Amino acid sequence: MASDPLTPPNPDFERAVREMFAGQPFMRHIGARLVSAAPGRSEIHLPFRSEVTQHDAYYHGGIIAMLSDMAGGCAVYTLLPAGQRALTVEFKVNIIAPGQGEMLVARGQVVRAGRTLIVCRSDVSGVRGGEETACAACLMTLMTVPR
Amino acid sequence: MASDPLTPPNPDFERAVREMFAGQPFMRHIGARLVSAAPGRSEIHLPFRSEVTQHDAYYHGGIIAMLSDMAGGCAVYTLLPAGQRALTVEFKVNIIAPGQGEMLVARGQVVRAGRTLIVCRSDVSGVRGGEETACAACLMTLMTVPR
Amino acid sequence: MASDPLTPPNPDFERAVREMFAGQPFMRHIGARLVSAAPGRSEIHLPFRSEVTQHDAYYHGGIIAMLSDMAGGCAVYTLLPAGQRALTVEFKVNIIAPGQGEMLVARGQVVRAGRTLIVCRSDVSGVRGGEETACAACLMTLMTVPR
Amino acid sequence: MASDPLTPPNPDFERAVREMFAGQPFMRHIGARLVSAAPGRSEIHLPFRSEVTQHDAYYHGGIIAMLSDMAGGCAVYTLLPAGQRALTVEFKVNIIAPGQGEMLVARGQVVRAGRTLIVCRSDVSGVRGGEETACAACLMTLMTVPR
Repeated sequence: MASDPLTPPNPDFERAVREMFAGQPFMRHIGARLVSAAPGRSEIHLPFRSEVTQHDAYYHGGIIAMLSDMAGGCAVYTLLPAGQRALTVEFKVNIIAPGQGEMLVARGQVVRAGRTLIVCRSDVSGVRGGEETACAACLMTLMTVPR
Repeated sequence: MASDPLTPPNPDFERAVREMFAGQPFMRHIGARLVSAAPGRSEIHLPFRSEVTQHDAYYHGGIIAMLSDMAGGCAVYTLLPAGQRALTVEFKVNIIAPGQGEMLVARGQVVRAGRTLIVCRSDVSGVRGGEETACAACLMTLMTVPR
Repeated sequence: MASDPLTPPNPDFERAVREMFAGQPFMRHIGARLVSAAPGRSEIHLPFRSEVTQHDAYYHGGIIAMLSDMAGGCAVYTLLPAGQRALTVEFKVNIIAPGQGEMLVARGQVVRAGRTLIVCRSDVSGVRGGEETACAACLMTLMTVPR
Repeated sequence: MASDPLTPPNPDFERAVREMFAGQPFMRHIGARLVSAAPGRSEIHLPFRSEVTQHDAYYHGGIIAMLSDMAGGCAVYTLLPAGQRALTVEFKVNIIAPGQGEMLVARGQVVRAGRTLIVCRSDVSGVRGGEETACAACLMTLMTVPR
């Protein structure tokens, strides 16, 4: 798909993303880690632990959704001017298979970065024995907020 | 809006909803409580605690989304035949205002209960000094799964 | 659901909505009519004709979606300041039953009107022998645009 | 993103897609053409004409949404067993830029084909002087229906 050129206006974008992620008590709480942040892209890992599962021992759908949201948010933060923030306006996620395995991997990718609104996609997979199986697809909108 | 007559096929529907909710380690973990379940409807409360907030001390958007999802799921469970389950196929949530206050309230309502797919809405509000302010609106799809 | 007080800032809001609707060649083309516009609300009718159906003689899902979108847009226009416009940022629609009957009715309702973004819902029903059956539920986001 | 192997169970899948598309009076009516159908993928073109525009001469958002929906539907039909149909359960589209130019191009791609539910994405671009600009991103769910 065609998209805007994704040149980060903030040369120190990786630090901005890491600071935002580090400032999320809930992500820390469940043990999620931001493993990469490139212009318009991000990757987050969540190792298995029983608190993030639902009644049948799969990862909770809400946790999967939350990781999708965070992966999209981190991808967006790579493209923000220094000092700017972005808030999730809305997101839509399809849970396409049960999330299972030793880890969840969420990847975000900006589709279009406008001045006010930024649209991005993210995908979440369960990793089992090193092999990924897609468990969610997400499409969402964020809004930039001047500090 | 016109909708199907919402007569629970399971007379013991309230117990079925409560068992499903009780079986969710994550909901317990964050302190969410199912406070009511009527035919096609549900209400969930989440008292404030710092683990469920984001970097600016508002409730985390992902937590708000997760409560929407659970409220919808509980509303759906009130209409399932005994022994049947339902899984979230997809959901879309608009975060319409920052979630703040001493508690979040999430209410789910079934829009249409088909044999295979069930569509429902949910809303989340922040309660501050006893007054509610809407913070999210959600529209979602669940699929019934025979046990 | 709690929502903002919906006082139209433009006393002549009904004319603004009607002008916007009248300026849509496609709505005219398929024969859709705006039948009411109140603060934060709208209603649109589409009488049956074969061009708006799909392969099995039901109303085309895309037409149902388009009416949802227009109903939401018209509801939003009732709350805009004079001279302002609004564009659809995104929308999500559930087709909950086949659309059939002598007419489709679409109703829009604003959920929250912010300065930049406006969230609204809409529902579409098929009318058959005077009785309505819900066929779609929609949740969408619009953005205000200064002229 | 990881996805299912996309082997069409119907060797004559292309004909099945073309018949479905040809049976849509509305698509004919606006002049849309199915230009390709490969396993799990489709492409549809809509040449410019004034009936499909909105008040400011851009392509109508509803038309863009409808093309997204059709592109997704056609991609899904390439993977159905002979004689099976699929209906749109729900779709969510982001209008990311005004649709303009001499033609709209919509491309659908299946994300996951389950037995009952199929999730797919589609994108729509405006073509102007031969160059594409993305105007919409879509994520949707279809349900298979035995004939």
